[in-house]
Order: sequence, then structure tokens, then C-alpha cells
Amino acid sequence: MCLLLLTTCSLLLEKKMIVVKVGGSVGVDLDAVCADVARLVAVGRPLILVHGGSHLTNEVATALGHPPQFITSPSGYTSRLTDRRTIEIFEMVYCGQVNKSIVERLQALDVNAVGLSGIDGGLWRGTRKKAIRAIENGRLRMIRNSYTGRVEEVNINLLTTLLSNGFLPVLTPPAISYEGEAINVDGDRAAGATAVALNASDLLILSNVPGVLRDFPDESSLIQHIPRHDIDRIAENYAEGRMRIKLLGAKEALDGGVGRVIIGDSRGTQPIEHALSGTGTIIS
Amino acid sequence: MCLLLLTTCSLLLEKKMIVVKVGGSVGVDLDAVCADVARLVAVGRPLILVHGGSHLTNEVATALGHPPQFITSPSGYTSRLTDRRTIEIFEMVYCGQVNKSIVERLQALDVNAVGLSGIDGGLWRGTRKKAIRAIENGRLRMIRNSYTGRVEEVNINLLTTLLSNGFLPVLTPPAISYEGEAINVDGDRAAGATAVALNASDLLILSNVPGVLRDFPDESSLIQHIPRHDIDRIAENYAEGRMRIKLLGAKEALDGGVGRVIIGDSRGTQPIEHALSGTGTIIS
Repeated sequence: MCLLLLTTCSLLLEKKMIVVKVGGSVGVDLDAVCADVARLVAVGRPLILVHGGSHLTNEVATALGHPPQFITSPSGYTSRLTDRRTIEIFEMVYCGQVNKSIVERLQALDVNAVGLSGIDGGLWRGTRKKAIRAIENGRLRMIRNSYTGRVEEVNINLLTTLLSNGFLPVLTPPAISYEGEAINVDGDRAAGATAVALNASDLLILSNVPGVLRDFPDESSLIQHIPRHDIDRIAENYAEGRMRIKLLGAKEALDGGVGRVIIGDSRGTQPIEHALSGTGTIIS
Repeated sequence: MCLLLLTTCSLLLEKKMIVVKVGGSVGVDLDAVCADVARLVAVGRPLILVHGGSHLTNEVATALGHPPQFITSPSGYTSRLTDRRTIEIFEMVYCGQVNKSIVERLQALDVNAVGLSGIDGGLWRGTRKKAIRAIENGRLRMIRNSYTGRVEEVNINLLTTLLSNGFLPVLTPPAISYEGEAINVDGDRAAGATAVALNASDLLILSNVPGVLRDFPDESSLIQHIPRHDIDRIAENYAEGRMRIKLLGAKEALDGGVGRVIIGDSRGTQPIEHALSGTGTIIS
């Protein structure tokens, strides 16, 4: 059976897998994303959807009396300060409300979606950072109660088992540490690691901007193409906040063998089709 | 491959499958439940865990300004009034916080758990009740904005695929309607339907009481055995509130071919081991 399963999986992976990451910011149109997923699945294109939920998590955390806090690393990356209570709220929104609302939409479109977090089946594993360095009012601070990390291993077996049985995986953070603790990981980079593990031809990172902007937030300043060797320079000179992490994810994906990364817009109709046809920032 | 998979599945189902439902009431010890699951999985016993989350849902719904409402049917069953906002909050707690906390506990115990709702993979399907009859102040009221139903079909394919690949499914409501809407279903009866579909030898329904009590809440009045033909009489004369639904789930499970149902306690250590050894109310 193992041999047959491996054969099925290889055939599957040869068919130009797409990994689509859709962000959790204001303006992202999940109905449009799901309609596109249904169209691609109907023509037999293997696909995995990864999603976020940051904006809604901020709202729910505030409503529950545990408002979000963000930290900035010495190298300038911003991330959520994730204590144990934040992990619970994070799971409520990412794995509960958002993940199930996407699976429900896809099921209504006859796509046999299965929603999973990175905890399930040990799908996304990484090391929990025991101490995080953050810059606060110009001074370095060590944070030790944080449940965060980075995806280091992707359990491809769970994904190929589901794909080869006709299910569409819908993935979301958190991931899980080697000690079995839920850890917050960046969704863009997790999508990149997944694309690498599945030998994907395309990684689409969709959010509420048209792509990488030379002059943020001027949407007419879109950078249409970034060659691999130019990613660091662009990230340093033009990208702000979340976009720097998307570019880091793109670089990791290309270095891992993904064909191309497209950073595109998910605020309008047919966001996946548009990105696949080259609308957005293509990184290759 | 299909034939081989079917053979694997048959072998699996011959090995005396246990379905364990653990409630979401105050006092339920999820650490103890997970420790027992890990012991059983280690000795090769096939098992599926189903859980609730009612108490925490009430707390979160209240904190989010959408406090829970309950209705009583003309036949005396009490259930949650589930409008669309309640489904969202329900998913946050059941599919997010509780499901992932159980999967995390099991992963830390080296059990390769995968958390799923009844929406995922169309696992639990049923008809959404377009109108619900409720008794309010002695008068009949029709409720039409409710997303509720009953599990009529279990997608055994998703479960056997996961089981035969070494994953332990951890299941939770909601289910999904034939039109693709999330619907609140009773967890005890969903567990019963799952036990029937998997030809389980045992269905354990664990909550925060020792079993069916002749004189609720006097815990010394435990009824140790209920024969199949006596379920309705016991339900009518002794069981209150939630226990009536558990007995209904037990009856449906036995009628569907499950060997025995044990209604037991999950407040102490080794709750599954104790129930399997006959502590609680055995229904057969």
C-alpha cells in the first residue's frame, strides 16, 4: 500500500501544486478567494489554502479584555506578543471562526475542504523561542513568556494523505513545538515552508495591497517584478512592516525550490486567477 | 489501492473501536482524559475522541456581548438557540480553543491527534431545521433563525483514512447541512452516530456526573445498568436536562449496532479506564 500511496503522491505533486496564502487583514474578500479555489479544484489543479486572521484576533482579544501587543525585533520585524492567553484567543479566531468559515464556504461550493492548524497531526513543527529580543523605547528587552517560533518541519504525510483522497487542506497557524506546545508562527513563512515541502510550482501571498509598493501606500507604485538576487535590497529600501516578512517568506520559498512567488491582491474578484496570470509582484 | 485501503480499514474496524465523548461542563478533567487516550493508543486500541465545549461557550458568548439563550422543545429537551452569531462563537470555542487544546495535550503525549469539526470533509451531515418549536412561558413559539440539526450521515472515509494512516481524530460540532451551512448538533448523539458508522464496540459518554442518577443530584443513587428496553422509562422518570439527550444518544447507538454504551464520570483520574471497566451506567 505504501508504494501505491507514494506513486499517487508523486503523480499529485507533479501536477504543479499551488499554495495560496490569504491574509487576515481588513478588505480581504474570502468569498472571492473561495470561488477561485473552487474553479481551480474543478479543473483538477492541486492546491492548498493557508490563511491568517490577525485583524479579527485583535478585535476579539480587545473584546475579551486581553488587548493585542506587538513587539519589534532589533532587525526591524514586527510581531504579535503571544503569551498563553493570546494563544487561546488566537486559536479561537484562526482555527475556530476563520478556518471554519472558509471550510464552510468551500463545502457550499462542493469543495471537500478539511481545515487544520499546524498543531493537527504535527503538521508544522518548530522550536519555541525561549527568549525574544525586542526594542522598546530604544532599549533592548528580553521577553520570556512568549509562545512563538518558526516552521522548521512540514508533515507532508498528512497533506498528501488528504490530497490523494480528494480532500483540500485549509491550513492556519499556530504550529507546534517539539515539546508539544502551540506556538505562533508567521503565516506567510509557514505557507512558504509548505510550498517547499510539497515542491509547489507557485506560492501566492495575497493580502490587502496590490503587491510590493515602491512608495507605500501609493498603489500606482507597484513593483511588478523582483529577481531573486534583488529581494534583500527591495525589502530594505521599500518594504514596510508586514511586507518585509512576506519578502522573507518569498526568498525562503524560492531558495527551497518553489518556481515563483506572487505577492498579490485579494480585495477584488478572482484574486487567485489574477495573481496566477501575473497581476501583482512576481518574484522569481 | 482502494482494495488495499478497504482491507486496512476492515482490519482496523475489527479491532474493537471505542468512541469516547467527553463533555464541556465544569469539572471535566481533559488532562486525565488525554492521558487515558494515550495509554489506549499505545496498546493499539483504535479510538476516536469527540468533545463538547458548552460551558466555555456560554462564558465567551457573554463576554462578547451575545449571551447564550436556551429553548425547551414541546417534548422537554433543552437546547441552545443558535443564530448565525452564535455559530461563530460556538466555532471559536469548540473548534478553536477546546479542540486545539485537546490536540495539543495529545501531541505532547506523542499521540498524533488531528482535530476536526463536523464541517471538515463533510464529516457530519444533516438537515438544517428551518423552523424549531419551542415552549416559552407555556406557549408555543416558532423559531426560524436557528442553525441546528441532527447528524444523519457520517463520512467514514475521512475517519478511516486518518485512522489507517496512524492519526487519531478528535471531533467536535458543528456539523454541516446539505446546503453547506454550519449547524449546531448535539455532541452526544453525534458521537453515537459516529460509533454506529464505525461499527464501534463501545461508546463512552463522559461528563461531570457518575452516570444516570435515580435521584439527581444524589451521586449515591447511580443506576448501574439499564437494559435496552428500559431506556425510555428511565429517561422519562429519572433523567433530567442533558441526561435525557445522552440516553437518546445511547438508544440510537445501540439500535445502530454498537455493543454497549457507558455513561460515566470524567472528573477524576483514568476516566476512560474506569468507564471501560464498568464504572458508571452501562446500557446494553
